[in-house]
Amino acid sequence: MDNTKLHVIKIGGNIIDHPEALASFLRDFASMPGLKILVHGGGKIATQMAKDLGIESQMVEGRRVTDSKSLDIVTMVYAGLINKSIVASLQSKKCNALGLSGPDGGIIQAKKRNPIPIDYGFVGDIIEVKGQDLAQLINLGYSPIFAPITSNAEGQLLNTNADTLAQAIAISLSAYFDVDLIYCFEKEGVLKDPSDEKSVIPMINQAMFDSLKKDGTVSAGMIPKLENALSAISKGVNVVRLCHADHLNHAFKGTQIKA
Amino acid sequence: MDNTKLHVIKIGGNIIDHPEALASFLRDFASMPGLKILVHGGGKIATQMAKDLGIESQMVEGRRVTDSKSLDIVTMVYAGLINKSIVASLQSKKCNALGLSGPDGGIIQAKKRNPIPIDYGFVGDIIEVKGQDLAQLINLGYSPIFAPITSNAEGQLLNTNADTLAQAIAISLSAYFDVDLIYCFEKEGVLKDPSDEKSVIPMINQAMFDSLKKDGTVSAGMIPKLENALSAISKGVNVVRLCHADHLNHAFKGTQIKA
Repeated sequence: MDNTKLHVIKIGGNIIDHPEALASFLRDFASMPGLKILVHGGGKIATQMAKDLGIESQMVEGRRVTDSKSLDIVTMVYAGLINKSIVASLQSKKCNALGLSGPDGGIIQAKKRNPIPIDYGFVGDIIEVKGQDLAQLINLGYSPIFAPITSNAEGQLLNTNADTLAQAIAISLSAYFDVDLIYCFEKEGVLKDPSDEKSVIPMINQAMFDSLKKDGTVSAGMIPKLENALSAISKGVNVVRLCHADHLNHAFKGTQIKA
Repeated sequence: MDNTKLHVIKIGGNIIDHPEALASFLRDFASMPGLKILVHGGGKIATQMAKDLGIESQMVEGRRVTDSKSLDIVTMVYAGLINKSIVASLQSKKCNALGLSGPDGGIIQAKKRNPIPIDYGFVGDIIEVKGQDLAQLINLGYSPIFAPITSNAEGQLLNTNADTLAQAIAISLSAYFDVDLIYCFEKEGVLKDPSDEKSVIPMINQAMFDSLKKDGTVSAGMIPKLENALSAISKGVNVVRLCHADHLNHAFKGTQIKA
């Protein structure tokens, strides 16, 4: 086992929402050799639960606002139900998973997003990841499993974007390990033609991204993902890969983002 | 700081249910010097949430049965909302809290309770606490905060009694530290007269317990608590104290259970 290589993997809500896809992904994650971290999103369980409890989602300019009741629900669902179900499942597969959220061990410091110009409510932006403390837990043999819930200095819990959390963790740990960041989702990678899953672009760098953005090949939803990935590369991450959740252990499938 | 002394503290649902009592307790816990662990119960939030979701509590012979939906709710509320709220609050008070449940790091191994003679559903009995791994986290400077959710070897989450969890953790860690186990609740201690909070029995040992049980001084609800406490003492715990949550840092208040 190469102790200097670390994989930081993010799975999206689409996988969380499908028990069979999740089970298959967790088998792959458990069997992956070497040091690894998982960051999971939330999926639709929280939305359904809010509905069942009669809590209406507030939207501002098309984006969800996390009010106090919604924050309770995402904390319960993400840091409780999803995180502990994943950890227990991985433990049963001999992967030494350790469930964490931002406040645990003070590992993630966040702040409430500025309410001006738009007040998104209890949404957290990451200030700092204590990479050294996290590296210590990894070196003890644990695979940290992160729920996208953070807190600020006053102890206020905050809902946090899982993509951004994975990126911040990967950047911070690149001071201690050779980090690959992998975003697993329901697509084969970045596609030249969104309707053709075979049109995967195998590699993208900054210059290629600029041109893909210019000619309209990459769509609105993909632009922030690629910007995040390129920013991670510029801050010390070795490579970022966007791939289908089924291809976690197929290093050459999907799209590689490189310097 | 004496690194060999460790306090394992359990707070009951009655404190969790009262935000001001909980805030006051957490201030006391954060300011407590030395090594410490907190085990928290659940309180009424889970019951209320089940009600709001239209999930009816099943009772068998006066005891709650944890069916699949109830298990989801206690996992969300105990390991998610309550655990992370406590951890974030303690971190804001400069206590390096680390939220854990049984499956995290494989620290607690449990099994589903035998359904014969009574099937309580997804209820876990503790098989083993990996004291060495937990001691390692404590020696790194973390204060573990445990939610009473465990899992079995197959990755099935299980609802677990918080008193028993605190006892099992205290016993296991007595191989590595000089452990005091403190049960904080809404009473001043074990009372000679249940209606008189001033009638606290300052010390109980096995012989005294036998006689208190015989003459009916200790009631039905207190008997298992005292039996648990005496069992902890016989298995390596230094002293068990039952006291009011306001008296965490008053070592001579409440009832001490000794060998």
